[in-house]
Amino acid sequence: MLSNIRIVLVQTFHPGNIGQAARAMKTMGLTDLVLVTPRRFPDHEADRLAAGAEDVVADARVVDTLSEAVSDCVQVVGASARLRSQPLPHYDEPDVMAQTLVELAAEDPVALVFGRERFGLTNDEIQCCSHQVSIPANPDYGILNLSQAVQVLAYEVFRAWRQRPDSGYQTPRPSTGPLPTRQQLDYFHAHLSRVMHASGFLTQPHARTEQQLQALFNRAQPNRKELSLLRGLLNSLEESL
Amino acid sequence: MLSNIRIVLVQTFHPGNIGQAARAMKTMGLTDLVLVTPRRFPDHEADRLAAGAEDVVADARVVDTLSEAVSDCVQVVGASARLRSQPLPHYDEPDVMAQTLVELAAEDPVALVFGRERFGLTNDEIQCCSHQVSIPANPDYGILNLSQAVQVLAYEVFRAWRQRPDSGYQTPRPSTGPLPTRQQLDYFHAHLSRVMHASGFLTQPHARTEQQLQALFNRAQPNRKELSLLRGLLNSLEESL
Repeated sequence: MLSNIRIVLVQTFHPGNIGQAARAMKTMGLTDLVLVTPRRFPDHEADRLAAGAEDVVADARVVDTLSEAVSDCVQVVGASARLRSQPLPHYDEPDVMAQTLVELAAEDPVALVFGRERFGLTNDEIQCCSHQVSIPANPDYGILNLSQAVQVLAYEVFRAWRQRPDSGYQTPRPSTGPLPTRQQLDYFHAHLSRVMHASGFLTQPHARTEQQLQALFNRAQPNRKELSLLRGLLNSLEESL
Repeated sequence: MLSNIRIVLVQTFHPGNIGQAARAMKTMGLTDLVLVTPRRFPDHEADRLAAGAEDVVADARVVDTLSEAVSDCVQVVGASARLRSQPLPHYDEPDVMAQTLVELAAEDPVALVFGRERFGLTNDEIQCCSHQVSIPANPDYGILNLSQAVQVLAYEVFRAWRQRPDSGYQTPRPSTGPLPTRQQLDYFHAHLSRVMHASGFLTQPHARTEQQLQALFNRAQPNRKELSLLRGLLNSLEESL
C-alpha cells in the first residue's frame, strides 16, 4: 500500500533537498521517488543528506517530463502553495488528501508532486495533476522548504495508513509495569488517611480532602512498584510521628 | 496564543539545523525560540538556512540549562524517539499533544523540547519535562532530522490552533467563480440530451444514461463560465449534426 505512493520532485535545484526529501520519505515508510530533470543528480550532497536513506536515493528514477513520471497513476496530487486561476479539485486539508491517497493506493499507484524550490509547479505541470493540496501555514510566511513540505505530507500519509485497521501498525508504548488492584489502592488510601490524621493535618474525617487526594493518585496511575514506594514513605512517616 | 508556545533546542550541533528549525517555526506561526548551550551560535549557517525567518533566529534566547529555558512553563513536552524506563506521561499522537498545548497556551507559556541530533535528550533533561511525545514513524527507520521533527510538531500545533473557532484562521480557497442556478443546469442537461439524441448515441429516452451524465457534471461543479463553454460546444455540435 505505501509502496504504491510515489513522491515526484520536479526540477529540484539543490541536490541536498533530494537527500533530505529521501530521508523524510523513508521515516514515513515511503520508498518510490521519481525525479523530473533534477538540476544535478546523482550528487554527493544528495547522498550525504539522505543519512540512512541512501537506498531511496539510489533507487530513484529520473525522467524527462512530469507526464512520464505519473502516467500510470490514478490520482496525482500537486503540492502547491499558490492558488491557481484554473483550479483543480483542491484539498484544503492534508489529512483528507492523505486518507484518499492511501485508500486508492491499496489498488493502484498514486503520486504526490512537488515543484521547484523557488517557483513551484508551472501551470502546465498542474495540468498533469488531478488534484491540488496546500499545507495550511502562516499567511505572512507560508512557504515551507521543499524537503519540509515532503516531510509534512509524508507524515500525513503515514498517519492515514497506520490509522487503518488493516495496517497492523503497533504504536510503541512505554511499558507501565504491573498495575495494582483496587484493593491495594484502597489499602494505600486508608494508609494515607491514617498518616494525615496522625500528623494533625486532618483533625477529623474530611471526606472532601480525602477524595481530592484519591483523584490525584488515580490520575497518576501508580504501578505496583510506585505504590510500594509510597507505602514505604508512609510507613517511615508513621514511625516518626 | 501561538506566541505562548516555545520551541527549545538542546545543544544543537549543526547551526544549519537551528536556521531550518526557525524557518519551520515561522511557517507555522511560532516565534519563541530558546537554545540551550548550542554548539555554535550565532553562526552564518543559521542565518543562511533561516531563509526569511532570520527574525526568529535573531530573537532566540540562549540559556545554560533546560531548566532555565522552561521554568515559567505550565507544560513541557519532550520530543523523544526513545522510550524511557521511567516514563513520563506519554502522548502517542502528536495531534492530541498539540490540542492540549494550544489549549493551555491560551493562558500560560508551554514548551516543546528537542534534543541533540544524535543523542536526543538525556534522562535528566527528560525530568525537566512534564510529558513526552513521539512522532509515529517507520519502525525500521524512525528518526527524523531535527528540523524536520520541529516542522512536523509545529505543523500539528498550527493545525490544532486554526481548527479552534476563536483562531479566526481563514483557509485560502481558490475562487470558483459564480455558480449556475439549478435552472441553468437543467437547461444544460436538456441541451446535452438533445445532442445525444441528434447524434444517434441515444435512439430513445434513456433515463439511466442521462442520470449518470448528470451525476458526473454535478460532481464537476461547473461554474457559469464553464457551463457557457459547454453550451457553446453543444451548440457547435448541434449545428454540425
